[in-house]
Amino acid sequence: MSKTNSGYFFEDYTIGQVIEHAVPRTVSGGERALYHALYPARHALYSSDEFARSCGLPNAPLDDLAAFHVVFGKTVPDISLNALANLGYAEGRWLLPVYAGDTLRSTSEVIGLKQNSNGKSGVVWVRTKGTNQRGDVVLEYVRWVMVRKRDLDAPAPETVIPDLANALSVDQLVVPEGLNFTNYDFTLAGEPHRWADYAVGEVIDHVDGVTIEEAEHMLATRLWQNTAKVHFDAGARDGGRLIYGGHVISMARALSFNGLANAQIIVGLNGGAHANPCHAGDTIRAWSEVLDRAETSAPGVGALRLRLVATKGRNAGALKGEDGRYLPDVLLDLDYWALMPM
Amino acid sequence: MSKTNSGYFFEDYTIGQVIEHAVPRTVSGGERALYHALYPARHALYSSDEFARSCGLPNAPLDDLAAFHVVFGKTVPDISLNALANLGYAEGRWLLPVYAGDTLRSTSEVIGLKQNSNGKSGVVWVRTKGTNQRGDVVLEYVRWVMVRKRDLDAPAPETVIPDLANALSVDQLVVPEGLNFTNYDFTLAGEPHRWADYAVGEVIDHVDGVTIEEAEHMLATRLWQNTAKVHFDAGARDGGRLIYGGHVISMARALSFNGLANAQIIVGLNGGAHANPCHAGDTIRAWSEVLDRAETSAPGVGALRLRLVATKGRNAGALKGEDGRYLPDVLLDLDYWALMPM
Amino acid sequence: MSKTNSGYFFEDYTIGQVIEHAVPRTVSGGERALYHALYPARHALYSSDEFARSCGLPNAPLDDLAAFHVVFGKTVPDISLNALANLGYAEGRWLLPVYAGDTLRSTSEVIGLKQNSNGKSGVVWVRTKGTNQRGDVVLEYVRWVMVRKRDLDAPAPETVIPDLANALSVDQLVVPEGLNFTNYDFTLAGEPHRWADYAVGEVIDHVDGVTIEEAEHMLATRLWQNTAKVHFDAGARDGGRLIYGGHVISMARALSFNGLANAQIIVGLNGGAHANPCHAGDTIRAWSEVLDRAETSAPGVGALRLRLVATKGRNAGALKGEDGRYLPDVLLDLDYWALMPM
Repeated sequence: MSKTNSGYFFEDYTIGQVIEHAVPRTVSGGERALYHALYPARHALYSSDEFARSCGLPNAPLDDLAAFHVVFGKTVPDISLNALANLGYAEGRWLLPVYAGDTLRSTSEVIGLKQNSNGKSGVVWVRTKGTNQRGDVVLEYVRWVMVRKRDLDAPAPETVIPDLANALSVDQLVVPEGLNFTNYDFTLAGEPHRWADYAVGEVIDHVDGVTIEEAEHMLATRLWQNTAKVHFDAGARDGGRLIYGGHVISMARALSFNGLANAQIIVGLNGGAHANPCHAGDTIRAWSEVLDRAETSAPGVGALRLRLVATKGRNAGALKGEDGRYLPDVLLDLDYWALMPM
Repeated sequence: MSKTNSGYFFEDYTIGQVIEHAVPRTVSGGERALYHALYPARHALYSSDEFARSCGLPNAPLDDLAAFHVVFGKTVPDISLNALANLGYAEGRWLLPVYAGDTLRSTSEVIGLKQNSNGKSGVVWVRTKGTNQRGDVVLEYVRWVMVRKRDLDAPAPETVIPDLANALSVDQLVVPEGLNFTNYDFTLAGEPHRWADYAVGEVIDHVDGVTIEEAEHMLATRLWQNTAKVHFDAGARDGGRLIYGGHVISMARALSFNGLANAQIIVGLNGGAHANPCHAGDTIRAWSEVLDRAETSAPGVGALRLRLVATKGRNAGALKGEDGRYLPDVLLDLDYWALMPM
Repeated sequence: MSKTNSGYFFEDYTIGQVIEHAVPRTVSGGERALYHALYPARHALYSSDEFARSCGLPNAPLDDLAAFHVVFGKTVPDISLNALANLGYAEGRWLLPVYAGDTLRSTSEVIGLKQNSNGKSGVVWVRTKGTNQRGDVVLEYVRWVMVRKRDLDAPAPETVIPDLANALSVDQLVVPEGLNFTNYDFTLAGEPHRWADYAVGEVIDHVDGVTIEEAEHMLATRLWQNTAKVHFDAGARDGGRLIYGGHVISMARALSFNGLANAQIIVGLNGGAHANPCHAGDTIRAWSEVLDRAETSAPGVGALRLRLVATKGRNAGALKGEDGRYLPDVLLDLDYWALMPM
């Protein structure tokens, strides 16, 4: 009997199944420093303990996307080892900040199944929760992937397609306890623009670009204990190593500082698509579009719904062609909620 | 007089000589995070403080191999700066876990000398000890290297060849104080296989591969303050930068998680050979062979003696040719003891 | 209105203007570990908490140059985003060690302005101060850069050229409180040479070389939150990514351990020139020249004024051609004061 993990195949999933993912992880100042080395991350709340305290938090948390990557990475051996494609995200919520010293683990529940008409694969929907050492859920999200069947003769499961929100409403967002932006220091944060300065429909070109190297995306992907071999083994697929989609998300988010320096905290992930593959040598740029605005009950805290687009091109605002498909240089189309001083 | 270190030459060593190596090093969560970024390391005991506590330790220690690299790195300026070859290891024992905040230093004693028949070089055997800030020895090992002579007319020393054990016996292994695997969580650790599931002679193909980049092996080697110029200066030797053998050891060990996730703690190094040089662009794979099994007196803790082979090829189990020499794609042949839940 | 930062242009600066730079940064053991991974840094005082304590400090501080890079990085969006050249440094002083847990921020005052005769650009002198979370100044330096004008018709400001010291005198240097080298352990530090062993005019070839990779200099530059696009975007200028000058400074300083292992603490920066651009693939070497020696009032602590030269070549001691210009393989010419056991 083989001792190595061959992963789950489509017929291994059943509705309601709960998978406890392996390898809990304690994070420290080391992960925070590495996040700053890997991405041009400058949001002040995540860079400075003092700034975080001035906003009512006990310390600077680990970047929200770093917390996401840690939780996500654990799911890879069970959810996406035999995946043909990562299809989407929905209903992602950050429920608690993660601090140095916290230990994270992940659990996923299968909430949807649909075999493809070719009988060779199917779509699996899971709701993943990341919990800390006290058992509190720190974030949750739904992801769906297309997974191969091991046995093509295995019977198709009953089709269950979960009913997922197109976008979270503002009352579903969780503002970190104690957060208070009434004494927010715009000078230290890096930009004067407050929530009221952003208009729905506004498009922001984040200007800067970063050319990606193999060593960097592998360091990042390993740091989150993501083991998908396509990211590491140059011979695993034609065209060379595929860059982990989360690396593109973090790069684009960090680049978006230039124009969205005050979109401090990510609290909701409404959806996301990895529109085209990214490879070493690509130069990533980013642009954002303001999709919605809402007030929260926390003092001085507004919420902005943003589309974040990563692209290999320079054409901010261009997303899809006349055929409705993503343009070839679009890498990522992400829809999220961020908290901002009003 | 030159102020730079020209290193020791063969005639500079004498039996019984004790060399106190320079540059003590304090480790922190930063080194732990970097180890996870550099290698696909997932053994739960080193990833999670909570998991380590559930096994009776106060916190997750620094990876055993990271501790080895720190101790080893300090010896390079005195032992291997003028080395022609790193010939072998023996009698390596991890005596105490290393935790964030510990400060390590290294000392070596010359225990063997044998001039080569060509009169131009000789073999030096040293027993190296790493100690922490309390003066406790955290690990020790014997290494032998072939070192150039500075002065070819220097007389040959009396030949002393140390009597080294082929392998440590289980009673020579030191189990960390308090270690208890009776409540071991196999789900969180990532695999169900326990000590009793492994049979002597069993070969495990660890499946995954990682293509190595220059930036990564240099980051790793510098992190351990290993200064051997062949790893950093592209012009120092024909064929480009030689990858530090310890980088291959750590990569192979991390890859071996897939099939040996519960071989949590390395406690003994019986021997090791860097069979062929490794360069950037090589894709490293690994396989293991179970060499021996033993019980320990600690609750629920068994010991497994393993051969860990790193290779550029895909032929798990293939080690040497008919001529008794390592196959050209074998990079590493390591013989170690690990602790595992029974 | 654009929300992104277009930076300051020459006509935006006025004498006496104080610019508070954004994004404070808390450092931890993570930044220390990364500094050791990025550079072959081995000065014992920065590597070992125990060694630092034996010299009268509470713990190993963050490397002086890492502190410099953090403070410098914050100034980039306001000072050098539109800079055509980084022209020089003067009167740099390290006033307090930086420890894990400290939060740094930066402020610059404009102290000099001179429009170029072509009317298209001008030189701006700023005095930058880095402060910690208690408001104490941890370091300060003067830098001058050539900056583009946005509006070529903007009137030239009155020319003010600050009166800058050619070199700091020893009584302007600040020795860290409590520093005491009377029990200095030369063995653990790595070299026997003390202050009295260095003669003015002595040239030291630091021997070792490091070939630079794109991934490494980008990791380093991002770690200091330096956002200048020429370092990251392969298409931003002809000839590919330009390596941040500070990366060359840190690499050369770390290489200088071999011959200057006891030049532990950098306390003064008298001047510096980035003589030629550095690119990935270059192999950096370093040599030093002893420029001056002085005693301090701290027990056992001497000061050495050193010229540190980074070069792509192998000709230690060669700096300028007959035309008085830097030789083409000289990358850096830095003039600094370091503290050393007497």
